[in-house]
Amino acid sequence: MSNDGDTGRFAYDGLERIIHERARLSILTSLASHPKGLLFNDLKALCSLTDGNLSRHMTMLAEAGLVEIEKGERNNRPTTLCRLTESGRTRFLSYLSVLESVLADAQRLPTGRPSEGLAPA
Amino acid sequence: MSNDGDTGRFAYDGLERIIHERARLSILTSLASHPKGLLFNDLKALCSLTDGNLSRHMTMLAEAGLVEIEKGERNNRPTTLCRLTESGRTRFLSYLSVLESVLADAQRLPTGRPSEGLAPA
Repeated sequence: MSNDGDTGRFAYDGLERIIHERARLSILTSLASHPKGLLFNDLKALCSLTDGNLSRHMTMLAEAGLVEIEKGERNNRPTTLCRLTESGRTRFLSYLSVLESVLADAQRLPTGRPSEGLAPA
Repeated sequence: MSNDGDTGRFAYDGLERIIHERARLSILTSLASHPKGLLFNDLKALCSLTDGNLSRHMTMLAEAGLVEIEKGERNNRPTTLCRLTESGRTRFLSYLSVLESVLADAQRLPTGRPSEGLAPA
């Protein structure tokens, strides 16, 4: 690369693995658009996950401090409410801003400076 | 979920694993914005990957038909040119459209229909 400023230009370090994995991205997006939280079964349906998979990913997200899980009761039945934490929301927004830059980079017009035209490094 | 139409609403099946993994997303975005291709070393710098990692991911992407690798020579030195294939470009655009819907879903205003307010299923 002739221009050192381009080094790491497409590295996207902000795409944290804990958030980027598809099932967890699905869970976090569902929760982000439901600020009061979602019941476990509703979240499971929205994300098309099994009980086991949703449990496993929610545990990972809770251990990372991104979500919180609240056990309760409604109409004499146990309920599990899932919510983004405040810091989870902040980290998710920061992740989304990197995702936006991926989209912007992928969709911008070609630079007209193809690598082939450069002198070898 | 009271509305069956919401089932799978946030599942994002179109986020193909072969494309979604961060290093490969980085590689594909670099190549998408350089339609004439990138030399291996330039691509490596843009993505901040090691030789070994870039080789491994390029092999996976080539086996999936998303990229092509062309060995050549320039100024008496061997070169490796990396490019998106036509079908790779099509699949990547389709992936990006799902990514756009993730962003749209995550950033839209809350629906005002929190899960907590629903009667248990």
